[in-house]
Amino acid sequence: MDKANEFYTFKGYQTSREGELTPAMEDYLEMIYRLLRNQAVVRIGELSDHLHVKPSSASKIVQTLKELDYIEYEKYGYILLTEKGQEEGAYLLYRHEVLERFLCLLNNTSTELEQVENLEHFVNRLTVENLRRLTDRLGGGLTWPS
Amino acid sequence: MDKANEFYTFKGYQTSREGELTPAMEDYLEMIYRLLRNQAVVRIGELSDHLHVKPSSASKIVQTLKELDYIEYEKYGYILLTEKGQEEGAYLLYRHEVLERFLCLLNNTSTELEQVENLEHFVNRLTVENLRRLTDRLGGGLTWPS
Repeated sequence: MDKANEFYTFKGYQTSREGELTPAMEDYLEMIYRLLRNQAVVRIGELSDHLHVKPSSASKIVQTLKELDYIEYEKYGYILLTEKGQEEGAYLLYRHEVLERFLCLLNNTSTELEQVENLEHFVNRLTVENLRRLTDRLGGGLTWPS
Repeated sequence: MDKANEFYTFKGYQTSREGELTPAMEDYLEMIYRLLRNQAVVRIGELSDHLHVKPSSASKIVQTLKELDYIEYEKYGYILLTEKGQEEGAYLLYRHEVLERFLCLLNNTSTELEQVENLEHFVNRLTVENLRRLTDRLGGGLTWPS
């Protein structure tokens, strides 16, 4: 068997994940960035509503994002993005939108939210950039023989 | 914000995952299927070596795969695939290879194992089929302006 020794399980890859953000932290940061496009500040309750999680779960992740210098936050207060958080949030939203556009084009669908939410954490920057280029290039739409 | 109420976290999607196989179970079944292409039977130790996990972890998942009727297995014995396991294993390997071919073409790389191992659990059958068609169509290769 080729390359047999390179295989790891999904869990094995997760524990050796590059970068400091887990999929959960990425989801939170992306949502904070999304909300802050249309409003000046975000509160924990709003964030947990939008992500369908308990406020207590949201508090924990928000605390970690603060420790990693992505956000500013005081208990019971507002969540604001730091410069680092702005930059990362913008990339996360961009990555989401690139995947959504590509999959909708590929599958001739109007939304691919569930697949995108699952896949987005695992595509690297080269893949994101090339998917954007490919989607632009295929812009006219794809049709498959039935 | 559009569609705000449809967002869930990555964890939220995992707990509502369709189908009965977890990412870990998929990795095991795919590896069993891979190994059985070149040999008549597989042992737990071999499986855990190839997946870089402990034999005790492998035993647990193998037991679950047996309960779900994907494999036949007696403790300390050989692992064999049932008809259901054959069918699912073949699909998992196919899905893996479709993603690998597509990403190597997209990124002009010779392997994309890490991304494939992470992404494969989250693409649906429509996406797999259309990625195969797209890869066939783009067969000549992709070049991007530098």
